[in-house]
Amino acid sequence: MTNHIKLIGASKVFICNEAFDIISNGGVAFECFEDKESKIIEVGDYQTLKKKYPNASFYDDSVILPAFINTHIHFEFGNNISSFIYGSFEKWLESVMQKRDEVLNDIQSSVKSSIQEQLQSGVATVGAISSYGQDMPILANSDLRVIYFSEVIGSIPVALDFLYESFSSRYIASKGFKSHKFTPAIALHSPYSVHSILAKKVLEIAKKDNCLLSTHFLESAAEREWLEDQKGWFKTFYKNTLKIPSPKPLYTIKEFLDLFEGMRVLFTHCLFATHKELLTISKNGYVISCPRSNRLLNNTYIDLSMLKSAGLNPIFATDGKSSNDNLNMLDELKCALFSYPNIQLEDLSKTLILGATKYAAKALNLKSGALESDKFADISIFECPQIAKSSQPSLQFLLQCKKVKTLYINGNAVIQNQIQ
Amino acid sequence: MTNHIKLIGASKVFICNEAFDIISNGGVAFECFEDKESKIIEVGDYQTLKKKYPNASFYDDSVILPAFINTHIHFEFGNNISSFIYGSFEKWLESVMQKRDEVLNDIQSSVKSSIQEQLQSGVATVGAISSYGQDMPILANSDLRVIYFSEVIGSIPVALDFLYESFSSRYIASKGFKSHKFTPAIALHSPYSVHSILAKKVLEIAKKDNCLLSTHFLESAAEREWLEDQKGWFKTFYKNTLKIPSPKPLYTIKEFLDLFEGMRVLFTHCLFATHKELLTISKNGYVISCPRSNRLLNNTYIDLSMLKSAGLNPIFATDGKSSNDNLNMLDELKCALFSYPNIQLEDLSKTLILGATKYAAKALNLKSGALESDKFADISIFECPQIAKSSQPSLQFLLQCKKVKTLYINGNAVIQNQIQ
Repeated sequence: MTNHIKLIGASKVFICNEAFDIISNGGVAFECFEDKESKIIEVGDYQTLKKKYPNASFYDDSVILPAFINTHIHFEFGNNISSFIYGSFEKWLESVMQKRDEVLNDIQSSVKSSIQEQLQSGVATVGAISSYGQDMPILANSDLRVIYFSEVIGSIPVALDFLYESFSSRYIASKGFKSHKFTPAIALHSPYSVHSILAKKVLEIAKKDNCLLSTHFLESAAEREWLEDQKGWFKTFYKNTLKIPSPKPLYTIKEFLDLFEGMRVLFTHCLFATHKELLTISKNGYVISCPRSNRLLNNTYIDLSMLKSAGLNPIFATDGKSSNDNLNMLDELKCALFSYPNIQLEDLSKTLILGATKYAAKALNLKSGALESDKFADISIFECPQIAKSSQPSLQFLLQCKKVKTLYINGNAVIQNQIQ
Repeated sequence: MTNHIKLIGASKVFICNEAFDIISNGGVAFECFEDKESKIIEVGDYQTLKKKYPNASFYDDSVILPAFINTHIHFEFGNNISSFIYGSFEKWLESVMQKRDEVLNDIQSSVKSSIQEQLQSGVATVGAISSYGQDMPILANSDLRVIYFSEVIGSIPVALDFLYESFSSRYIASKGFKSHKFTPAIALHSPYSVHSILAKKVLEIAKKDNCLLSTHFLESAAEREWLEDQKGWFKTFYKNTLKIPSPKPLYTIKEFLDLFEGMRVLFTHCLFATHKELLTISKNGYVISCPRSNRLLNNTYIDLSMLKSAGLNPIFATDGKSSNDNLNMLDELKCALFSYPNIQLEDLSKTLILGATKYAAKALNLKSGALESDKFADISIFECPQIAKSSQPSLQFLLQCKKVKTLYINGNAVIQNQIQ
């Protein structure tokens, strides 16, 4: 009866519920079907569970937690190392316009190595934002659980039909890959870059298909200035780079937010959003923060206390290599631990882990991100020296762990007993 | 004539002078004596130098820079992983008092691996603070250039003679190891922990021997409160933990600073120092900042603009594993890049590199830390993908480089052509 059920145990099991409960010498029993959804059956004391589930392994000085969910990642830009300029959003965007062709050339091997980087850092699920669709078959055939956001972009009226067709064919292709591990979804690039006609057409599809949405929102001060005051760097950009004679913003900030009313949307960055705008987002939306990307492009981090007061739980992601030195989720979380020096260290470590598990799953509408019965069996095991005796396990996990030891996705080990 | 001279070249050579000049396709010619001091002979264009120095190697997509100088590191606490509590200086110090014996037990192998960690991250020189002297022979026989600070600590009057003897015997032993690569020096633990009688005796020796000094200074808010207002956590600590009936601070802040008048002193941490105190320090002293340690214990970073306005160039170090997750100098600098989001990214990257090279050498009174003729031949080579075409080389160096490729200390390769 239980031969399709595996039990794993470790010194510390991070449930990743809201209270951040930790079970010492805990165990997780889960299904390990190869051909269908595998779920967590039971979580509790390892020794007790072992009587019920004999197919069991215990990991000393180790942590078991729900596998990470990286909600915002651009795989297509994996070739970037030093092509794009950091330190200013404006200079960065100019460098992207200039150099993206060379970065986007021949991306197969970089997509594959970025997938490995996800798995190695304990990520089971990605929210992959795809601008061109080249990463689609590689991701669909990978070990990862994928929410695949086909992205639409385009503001020049004459090009809208073409850009819609491009989006549409990619989105339709993504539906061809749909499976219990691959979910098609839709991304609107940003309020400054998607024409309202295009946005409305695409959102109709999203509504019809009951599709998850993602957008970049108020990432830079220049974006806010453009949308609010119709001036600043973006005006010059539209005039000189995109050759639009008398450019106007495509929306007010409110109009853009209103587009999504009643829909589940991931708003990424939101560095320059007001409390009021965050309150609007909090009705059906989620805020994704990419700390390293934000520092490298915009020299700031999202205000976590403002998020909290708007009723939003922060969610953390790596963004793409277009704006990060790597895509390692552990590095992202550890960096954030040092980016908010004023936040109590253990509280922050829990917030960071929950922002890559529980709340990330909630945003993506997935039954995962916590070690609870009936959730997906996406589970990671990390060796963590002295964790058994540590009085600060969530902090020590972030400080010490460098790569996953074993990673289960849908109950199957995609990395197993890797030497640390 | 030139067979004791080696020339190395790379895509980018960071001189590490004040202007942070970089030579593209630059070269560094240096002596490589085994038995005496080896110095840099000439720095310039690689192809030009090659005509003069035929024993030459060029490294594509690589950076050559002066080897790092880690001015403040406690090797003796290398066994700590999760024994000490982070998040509050007070809780940390309590945990150190409780658990230090287990951490200090059997340190040989951890000292050795910490030395390797220094070399791997491109460090040639350490300012090693030693409380017990157990690390002395290991460091003296290592590849590192060592400034060895024998530390004195003790505030309980009846124990002063014993503690002075302990210090004195360690300091004398360190003089026995003196060489062109090992320099004895003296550390006074801190204003809250070294009795003035002890301090004065030790400072007499320092003056007589013209000895470099190091001290921890105003690391915590509690320390400032104790020295200024004679109250707070330290009062309880002295009463309850050290069993001193009516404890009083050993100095005012000014009295402590006055102790060192006219002497070269490294003041480590200074998180709670005022501008006026920093001005006093700036006369003959230097400020060492340990960013990760500061965040983990005191939840803040030093104010770099206040340092600057006091005429002090920041110097960065790792501190010990007593207050850090590792002792990797590259990790320390990279972390600091994300810890000061408001400082212009490229400026900060240069400040960080100079704080581990030029200004660190100045503080330690060493002829190193810059690639200039007559400086010590302590030189590192790092592979750095795409650095040749990067327009932000100092930033890309910090973002990309993980471990040294080749490290010369005193002209001799202690790590050579290591696979990346």
